Amino acid sequence: MFKIRYLVAGILLSGTLSVASAWEALPTTAPAPADNPTTAEKVALGSMLYHDPRLSSTGTVSCASCHNTMLGGEDNRPNSMGVHGKTGGRSAPTVWNAAFNKVQFWDGRAASLEEQAGGPVTNPIEMGMENWDVVVSRLKAIPGYQHAFTAAFGANSISKDTATKAIAAYERTLITPHSAYDRYVGGDKSALTEQQVKGMNKFASLGCGGCHSGAAFNGEGHFQKFPVQNAASYEQQYHLLQDKGLAEVTKKAENEHFWKVPTLRNIALTAPYLHNGSVPTLEQAVEMMAKLQLGKTLAKSDTADIVAFLNALTGPFPKQTMPALPATPGKTFNK
Amino acid sequence: MFKIRYLVAGILLSGTLSVASAWEALPTTAPAPADNPTTAEKVALGSMLYHDPRLSSTGTVSCASCHNTMLGGEDNRPNSMGVHGKTGGRSAPTVWNAAFNKVQFWDGRAASLEEQAGGPVTNPIEMGMENWDVVVSRLKAIPGYQHAFTAAFGANSISKDTATKAIAAYERTLITPHSAYDRYVGGDKSALTEQQVKGMNKFASLGCGGCHSGAAFNGEGHFQKFPVQNAASYEQQYHLLQDKGLAEVTKKAENEHFWKVPTLRNIALTAPYLHNGSVPTLEQAVEMMAKLQLGKTLAKSDTADIVAFLNALTGPFPKQTMPALPATPGKTFNK
Repeated sequence: MFKIRYLVAGILLSGTLSVASAWEALPTTAPAPADNPTTAEKVALGSMLYHDPRLSSTGTVSCASCHNTMLGGEDNRPNSMGVHGKTGGRSAPTVWNAAFNKVQFWDGRAASLEEQAGGPVTNPIEMGMENWDVVVSRLKAIPGYQHAFTAAFGANSISKDTATKAIAAYERTLITPHSAYDRYVGGDKSALTEQQVKGMNKFASLGCGGCHSGAAFNGEGHFQKFPVQNAASYEQQYHLLQDKGLAEVTKKAENEHFWKVPTLRNIALTAPYLHNGSVPTLEQAVEMMAKLQLGKTLAKSDTADIVAFLNALTGPFPKQTMPALPATPGKTFNK
Repeated sequence: MFKIRYLVAGILLSGTLSVASAWEALPTTAPAPADNPTTAEKVALGSMLYHDPRLSSTGTVSCASCHNTMLGGEDNRPNSMGVHGKTGGRSAPTVWNAAFNKVQFWDGRAASLEEQAGGPVTNPIEMGMENWDVVVSRLKAIPGYQHAFTAAFGANSISKDTATKAIAAYERTLITPHSAYDRYVGGDKSALTEQQVKGMNKFASLGCGGCHSGAAFNGEGHFQKFPVQNAASYEQQYHLLQDKGLAEVTKKAENEHFWKVPTLRNIALTAPYLHNGSVPTLEQAVEMMAKLQLGKTLAKSDTADIVAFLNALTGPFPKQTMPALPATPGKTFNK
């Protein structure tokens, strides 16, 4: 779990970065599982479902409410706000490039995008639907959805399985493989500023990439303990130890405070930070992670350089057409 | 206030509708006020602001939350749900073709789209911002908004005035001038079904157009008393008399139960119906309006024909690209 990958990349050769093989550009398509190959029809349906607030009990919360692709793929809140203004203890992870996570949710409890998509819809503090049978009944009552499911999966195919497959197929299109970092790694040396290259070197030499490895800087499915170092000095401010992470799922002491390594792509857009959204700015997050994970106290200039580098992991975002959500003429679905 | 316009149009001539001049197609552009001519830059900025949940105190409610253009321009709820799950007593009117209303809100208390846009942002049960100064401060802290306002209005132009002008300019693009009805009125006799033409005739001969007049079927700024007839038999079910409409604004007895005539365009998509969203289906709304406004009891087939006609007033909706909402890198705006 504690892989060290970026040592080579950290070596400076005559002032320019040695781009070792460890620096990977993001693939331009996301991998899809064998039982859910991506098709245009599934993506179109998935975009409709993803943006449809009628998948919530009140008709006010869609997947996009908390994982907003017009923003950085989440909601910029410490914790998300579900139906009736309810909030939980965790911050919404970005949907951008979630397709490159090997597990989903902060505690990695879902093994796929498909499995993840099934969760929030019936979570009482998120979308609040009674159960998936109610969701399926609602969808079946909307002629436009009958057509869209037929196009994607065949006749009479509306189910939790197909709905979550469509949402996952859509999410696999939500990737950002053409960032300044990717262009730099691809050979365009003008894509990064001098400060960003310095930050990239520091990111590597400090060991940030020990956890944030891979093209998505997400550890490629690894879990990591956080905090590693004694966090007492931060506890009052950030409450890092209240949530036990993976152990909340497994109930095993050895999993306490283990978390899925989150992607750093588009991190500049997803403040506030950490599983509980307790850290307001990227500067504070970088300083604290260096201290608590690597035992290093960063100079202000180091932090600024690393933040500059992290900004090179932003977008660009593919253009999206707003889906027209199919109506059931003259009926309401919301109580 | 009680104009009768459609009598001529109601005359059947050898089984086909006589399209009198009273049947108007919707203009293909919406009128803009002299002090806010529509420009591409304003529309782009307005689309961003319209979809930005950071215009609400919680960062969860945008204009689009209740006036959702992916749906029928509203939220399909009896009443809308603002910050912290708060609800009010009125149903969100559709934003589609609101540009053709001469006054805004159910009680017509705003004289323009610009004035309307200033309201919900600081309404405590809608978007809940403390005041517009706070909104302007938030926007000023976002570099991308500084650029977008500069492009639309010149340097250092972020204000309530410019923000609401941009939103109004965007809303003037949210029009649906190419419905089946418009094509029919424009000469394409195949655009409506036989039943829809029957319904169109009944709509006219019953006198529905006495209030729902003009190309947008919105009375072109007229107010109308509702209910006109004794509504005692409906009161328990629909609570029509609780809200006094225009009189809630003017405090004048003679304005009690007067309302802005709402557009019928896209009405098939905006269930539930009436100012309080108490009527679940379009069939029920048509039956009740005939009874309470015109003193007529409709046969089931009449209702079905009129509903078929009203469906001819739906869409099509212009394609919209999702705006990329500008972020303030590494900062959060939401408490």
